[in-house]
Amino acid sequence: MKVIVDLCVVPIGVGVSVSKYVAECQKVLQEAGLEHQLHAYGTNIEGDWDDVFAAIKRCHQRVHAIGAPRITTTIKVGTRTDREQSMQDKIASVTKSRP
Amino acid sequence: MKVIVDLCVVPIGVGVSVSKYVAECQKVLQEAGLEHQLHAYGTNIEGDWDDVFAAIKRCHQRVHAIGAPRITTTIKVGTRTDREQSMQDKIASVTKSRP
Amino acid sequence: MKVIVDLCVVPIGVGVSVSKYVAECQKVLQEAGLEHQLHAYGTNIEGDWDDVFAAIKRCHQRVHAIGAPRITTTIKVGTRTDREQSMQDKIASVTKSRP
Amino acid sequence: MKVIVDLCVVPIGVGVSVSKYVAECQKVLQEAGLEHQLHAYGTNIEGDWDDVFAAIKRCHQRVHAIGAPRITTTIKVGTRTDREQSMQDKIASVTKSRP
Repeated sequence: MKVIVDLCVVPIGVGVSVSKYVAECQKVLQEAGLEHQLHAYGTNIEGDWDDVFAAIKRCHQRVHAIGAPRITTTIKVGTRTDREQSMQDKIASVTKSRP
Repeated sequence: MKVIVDLCVVPIGVGVSVSKYVAECQKVLQEAGLEHQLHAYGTNIEGDWDDVFAAIKRCHQRVHAIGAPRITTTIKVGTRTDREQSMQDKIASVTKSRP
Repeated sequence: MKVIVDLCVVPIGVGVSVSKYVAECQKVLQEAGLEHQLHAYGTNIEGDWDDVFAAIKRCHQRVHAIGAPRITTTIKVGTRTDREQSMQDKIASVTKSRP
Repeated sequence: MKVIVDLCVVPIGVGVSVSKYVAECQKVLQEAGLEHQLHAYGTNIEGDWDDVFAAIKRCHQRVHAIGAPRITTTIKVGTRTDREQSMQDKIASVTKSRP
């Protein structure tokens, strides 16, 4: 099952600057070979369900490992059976619909 | 790794009433033997990471199987390494802190 | 416009225990006279759009005021024009649909 | 109070294709003169709290007006009192932290 995911990992108990931890997640996604795109409030990821969620689990493990005692993460997950759709397709279809 | 999750599955393309699909997810969680609690905008789930996310995947598979061509799901995931905490503990610690 | 909202306020930079800040938000909702229900990963709120979002803004102001330098909040908002629906109705309609 | 927001509006009961409704929200943000950036699973918005949330309310009103009987929206909201930060700053600080 193919998914498009929006991932936002928030480490808690490490002070106000969280970019080191978000960067670690970027590294995990890179290592996993997953298509991903960082934005200002999360990261879009595209791939097979199992691969994407294995990577998200690794993000939690690694963010804990480098020092965060607590993590709260928000995930949006989209799946569809009617047709294939990539992250680029989603953006393109909104852009095309602009009045 | 133990998780507390908040799950909100939204079937798209099945009309305005989505309760049949949410009920199907409740059934999946029940079958999985996972501690869970329905609220007005989602379901809290407690368990091992792999068990919880396997159940969430099954929710998507089953909601597609009973007719939804598209699904968008929002998941909040909490993990911590500093101490054990149950869903009841979280509610209790807020209630105790009430000024 | 009536809304049902799920609110999850996460203070950042205040250490690992956040219950004091969540309790402050409960107080804000109480003072606002809004119907609300705490769960293990947020709070469901019911009311008029403007009242609910004014209260959410006050939550941010108060959580900053009592010491959090940074806040990340997740909000789910539901509106519908086809019929009135309360938080209790939503739960009841899922429960009734259980196979 | 300045906010960075991630907005994802999901119309329900309008079939499987929702891009027309998302495009309408883009138009609302444009008309409001708010800095915003569409991504594959939402739109990042930057501005004053009141301006941003007034625009989000208008999104709901307009998406209902063009035909959606039901809407479920996910919003992430970030505020901070320790320093100013733009959407570009957030992306830059993660990119700089990459190991």
